[in-house]
Amino acid sequence: MALSAINTFAGNPLDRAGDRRNDPDWLAEQADNPDALAMVIWQGKPLVEETNTGPRLAWLALKHARAVVPDRELFLGLWNDAPVFAVEVEGPVDPSAGPLQGLGGFPEMREAAAILPGPDAAMAGTAKSLFDWRARHGFCSACGQESETACGGWKRICAACGSEHFPRVDPVTIMLAIYKGGDEPRCLLGRQAAWPAGRMSALAGFLEPGETIEEGCAREIEEEAGLTVTSVRYHSSQPWPFPSQLMIGLFAEVDSDDARPDQTELEAVAWLTRAEAKACLEGTHPTIKAPPPIAIARTLLQAWVDGFDV
Amino acid sequence: MALSAINTFAGNPLDRAGDRRNDPDWLAEQADNPDALAMVIWQGKPLVEETNTGPRLAWLALKHARAVVPDRELFLGLWNDAPVFAVEVEGPVDPSAGPLQGLGGFPEMREAAAILPGPDAAMAGTAKSLFDWRARHGFCSACGQESETACGGWKRICAACGSEHFPRVDPVTIMLAIYKGGDEPRCLLGRQAAWPAGRMSALAGFLEPGETIEEGCAREIEEEAGLTVTSVRYHSSQPWPFPSQLMIGLFAEVDSDDARPDQTELEAVAWLTRAEAKACLEGTHPTIKAPPPIAIARTLLQAWVDGFDV
Ligand SMILES: [Zn+2]
Ligand SMILES: [Zn+2]
Repeated sequence: MALSAINTFAGNPLDRAGDRRNDPDWLAEQADNPDALAMVIWQGKPLVEETNTGPRLAWLALKHARAVVPDRELFLGLWNDAPVFAVEVEGPVDPSAGPLQGLGGFPEMREAAAILPGPDAAMAGTAKSLFDWRARHGFCSACGQESETACGGWKRICAACGSEHFPRVDPVTIMLAIYKGGDEPRCLLGRQAAWPAGRMSALAGFLEPGETIEEGCAREIEEEAGLTVTSVRYHSSQPWPFPSQLMIGLFAEVDSDDARPDQTELEAVAWLTRAEAKACLEGTHPTIKAPPPIAIARTLLQAWVDGFDV
Repeated sequence: MALSAINTFAGNPLDRAGDRRNDPDWLAEQADNPDALAMVIWQGKPLVEETNTGPRLAWLALKHARAVVPDRELFLGLWNDAPVFAVEVEGPVDPSAGPLQGLGGFPEMREAAAILPGPDAAMAGTAKSLFDWRARHGFCSACGQESETACGGWKRICAACGSEHFPRVDPVTIMLAIYKGGDEPRCLLGRQAAWPAGRMSALAGFLEPGETIEEGCAREIEEEAGLTVTSVRYHSSQPWPFPSQLMIGLFAEVDSDDARPDQTELEAVAWLTRAEAKACLEGTHPTIKAPPPIAIARTLLQAWVDGFDV
């Protein structure tokens, strides 16, 4: 697999400077750099401006962003040696007045990801994941005392017990089950009761401690659709900032097409030939709507239509 | 990739009963089942007994285990409908006296994994990961109050703020960099200063929020060896209970063999032809010792010797 970013939220162009960001002096220098930039995040939504070439992340000089948002700062990395930060605005925000007036608006992250250039979506998603993590990890899980941010936001340290805490990345397997025993191969989509009418997608679930990617994939398909997996093939992966999943995209061959949706996760399932899947992607299927373009589930469906095989 | 457990700590044979374990009544029934069994974990080490067919996990009747260890219990799953638990012993333990006398010994988990049957190692590793998680997550990271165990040990709930917390699984990319530009293809091993003399292994590092598997792999190789990755191929994965990593085994083609170890993570690197890698695995290489059999790094090295290509 080449390194091109085939999934939304991939393709973050920054050098994370993972070694140097551990050095507070170096970090302070970056923040003092007059070229330092900051994106703004509010309630998980990025500040987006309209430009001649379409919507873009709105970048503030870090100095200016700090005046607006005195704390809650995150070092994202270097872009051609220019330091890039994110700041998180707390409380109610009116982008039509006050210090953010005229700078843009705050679309939902999913909406932003669909309209922003890939690198912008990737950087904004990374910032959202880190801010979400911080919001749920202000206290040390080992001793209960307040912890402090370190490494530009990439670590928290507990002064009381010495514990160090790192951002979570929660691996999720997401897969198309494929049955080849019929007249032609078909792939399995499922739908959750809460989804919009007609929407179907790939099956998915969190990996648990003590299982491989392949075992987690097989367990999910067994749990949600009652099918036995005989082999698994990796396709691609995607960071998914809701709040911080690693989506691991897979194809899984199953030994039967007798799928029984568990009625907990899934209320219905459907088997699609490649032609039917193509119709879903093109919006011409009579009943089934494909996953949206930002979802790796759609990448998997497209790959299968294009001939990817398990 | 077939579902056979090619890596140590894979192949947990239990049905985790992920849906049913959320029901306290069902869980209580399982614990009351006279067939319920429990393994014993002490300081991350499993209780192992010698049998006619070699070392095995020592299983106690859950009732008996509960008498020895009144709390710290974990539901692991069902084995042919028999409920399987793990209990964690606190404090000093002398397996040669007291209630555990004659039941076996407590080898280090790495040592146990090397001598136990695969399913035993997988179950013990799962238990270790969960107990390690609990030891570091007795308090709610969102509000600092004590949290309570739920779902047989697979979740913690904070009564104060309502937050739910799930066990961590930390994805790590581990990879053989491959350079094909020379007379014959070679793979890259590196060594950390703290390792035993001669030991070399695959490069590896934690995935961060906002990156794909492929991007994390490329970043690690760039950071640790100064090389640029042009493509990545997935091989296999492994749960690694120290404390709870998901090792994602990869091959990565690089565009140069000018590797420069960063001297932080790596003190030295070496390029090996397939023949040289084979000698490492067979113990006949003059200077380099291969990773141990329980490590996915050794699986990757063996796969490469056997012809797996990036
Ligand atoms: Zn602490
Ligand atoms: Zn709480």
